[in-house]
Amino acid sequence: MKSVNLKALAEQLNLSVSTVSKALNDSYEITPETKKRVLDLAQALHYQPNPYASSLRGQKSKTIAVIIPEIANNFFTLAINGIETVARENGYHVLIYLTHEDYHREVAFTQLLLNGRADGILLSASANTAGYDHLLELKQKMIPLVLFDRVFEELDTPRVTTDDLESGYNATKHLLEQGCKQVAHLMIAKHASIGSKRREGYQKALADHGFRPEAEQILHCGEDQEENYRQLKALLTSASPPDGIFASVEKLALLCYRAAAELGIAMPQQLKLISFSNLETAPYLQPSLTTITQPAFNIGMEAASILFRGIRTKEFPATSIVLPSKLVMRHSSTPGAPL
Amino acid sequence: MKSVNLKALAEQLNLSVSTVSKALNDSYEITPETKKRVLDLAQALHYQPNPYASSLRGQKSKTIAVIIPEIANNFFTLAINGIETVARENGYHVLIYLTHEDYHREVAFTQLLLNGRADGILLSASANTAGYDHLLELKQKMIPLVLFDRVFEELDTPRVTTDDLESGYNATKHLLEQGCKQVAHLMIAKHASIGSKRREGYQKALADHGFRPEAEQILHCGEDQEENYRQLKALLTSASPPDGIFASVEKLALLCYRAAAELGIAMPQQLKLISFSNLETAPYLQPSLTTITQPAFNIGMEAASILFRGIRTKEFPATSIVLPSKLVMRHSSTPGAPL
Repeated sequence: MKSVNLKALAEQLNLSVSTVSKALNDSYEITPETKKRVLDLAQALHYQPNPYASSLRGQKSKTIAVIIPEIANNFFTLAINGIETVARENGYHVLIYLTHEDYHREVAFTQLLLNGRADGILLSASANTAGYDHLLELKQKMIPLVLFDRVFEELDTPRVTTDDLESGYNATKHLLEQGCKQVAHLMIAKHASIGSKRREGYQKALADHGFRPEAEQILHCGEDQEENYRQLKALLTSASPPDGIFASVEKLALLCYRAAAELGIAMPQQLKLISFSNLETAPYLQPSLTTITQPAFNIGMEAASILFRGIRTKEFPATSIVLPSKLVMRHSSTPGAPL
Repeated sequence: MKSVNLKALAEQLNLSVSTVSKALNDSYEITPETKKRVLDLAQALHYQPNPYASSLRGQKSKTIAVIIPEIANNFFTLAINGIETVARENGYHVLIYLTHEDYHREVAFTQLLLNGRADGILLSASANTAGYDHLLELKQKMIPLVLFDRVFEELDTPRVTTDDLESGYNATKHLLEQGCKQVAHLMIAKHASIGSKRREGYQKALADHGFRPEAEQILHCGEDQEENYRQLKALLTSASPPDGIFASVEKLALLCYRAAAELGIAMPQQLKLISFSNLETAPYLQPSLTTITQPAFNIGMEAASILFRGIRTKEFPATSIVLPSKLVMRHSSTPGAPL
């Protein structure tokens, strides 16, 4: 029997391969109607999405490694789904390594992988990274490497990110347009680029709207959530508390809900909130959370596609792909928003 | 310099090893005060939680594999944190394999691991599993295996679970005590034990309270969330819609929020909801979600501890550890609850 692949399905349906793949993976980006069309044809043609049998027969261990800071973050959950979609198409397994934002663990993992355990590596840097010598070593050993989300711009390696600076700018501008006079920023990842880019966008938006960025309105948040929470409460009970907060990651936005409940601060009346987030519960929070939503699934797909292209061609041009994020207004910043 | 381990910290602080470990991992179960005591001593004694250097020097790949259905579920996120805590203590790496509830993928992973890539395996079965021959094969090859959460009771293997039947009973009883007359159940995992145990608890509670369990009030939910959503909406708009829902996993509870918003059903007035869940956002949802909260971190720690004990002693008695879950009342079922 001739085997049916994603491409064949896509051609018959007159859809893109990425749409078909997402539909098969039940992505929220695809309408139920399209999903049904895709699933019906996949079933009719006996599409078999599991190509592992062949790699098992050959006893070859076709695997790629994904090194990420955490999984309690919907961005990474969705990005992994994107990566696995492409890996499956290529007949590869995906192994996941969690650094828990620990630079030493990140280095240990890359060292382990130097011996060829994986055919390629996708990496998103830990927040407390102290440099990228360990990544240079991978490059010297010719181990295929693609960075995503949290990248090093100085490193001559393919990378896939979102428009962190523009999104940080738009998030801050949105709060100012909603009437905020004092916008604070909860920042993470001192060394990797996303932290500084999002902060840059914040500072630029403030300056463009005639506000002076104040150092004490930027909290440098670390891995200790209780310490972050103490800092946040200190800011909210200070002499000049913010009336708007732009959080760089969703776990910091959740601290704002906790602090608002504890301190009796009404959102959005007294405090408006926007956060980078792919939280599935964002529409159902009280109030619903305004988000900068990253194209997490596509970032994962794109990064994996570049990696497999490189594994095949042995070429890794230092391309930089930037996929834009989307501002979704909800009640935490905009009382009149639909949800 | 003498190296300091968790045990030494625990002894000096007069705390249990598990408490110290959780404090170092910033677990929500530990108070800020205790965390501070632990972190202060750890810093003073130069506690170094990263024992990878030694395994790298020896070029031995000390790894264990964790095979789980998904990561977009806070239960597994927390369980992995528990597993990694114990693995780190033992100087082991953790590799994560995601089955996405696909039985074929689960089989492929266990086949891959037959060749000794990992020193031991922790597994939580996929929902659509069709049996456990692949696990018998691991046992025949003497590969250490411990099951957690989604287990096979017929299999002669150590396992760690929560009290699924009792918790399902208590969840249903709670809704009946809140005045519900028609309680529906959103069920998953047809073949693994948690699905049937939670359903059994539901049915028993109904019978004990003089209600007849009705087949049409049990939705068998699969991997296609849109199909689950269609089923749920059909039930909610049927001739006998439920006034209470007990969801077996959090992603099904989120469908209830979505349906309530779309159909204009007021929670908790018209529909009360309780769900197995470790959702961090549960207290901040509108309404806040009443949960059966599993001891996820401890389940992970316990399963990993059994695995490492077995790796050392080569003995795997088929112990069954059951760690109880906790019912946390919130507004989705109890209008007068504190949050």
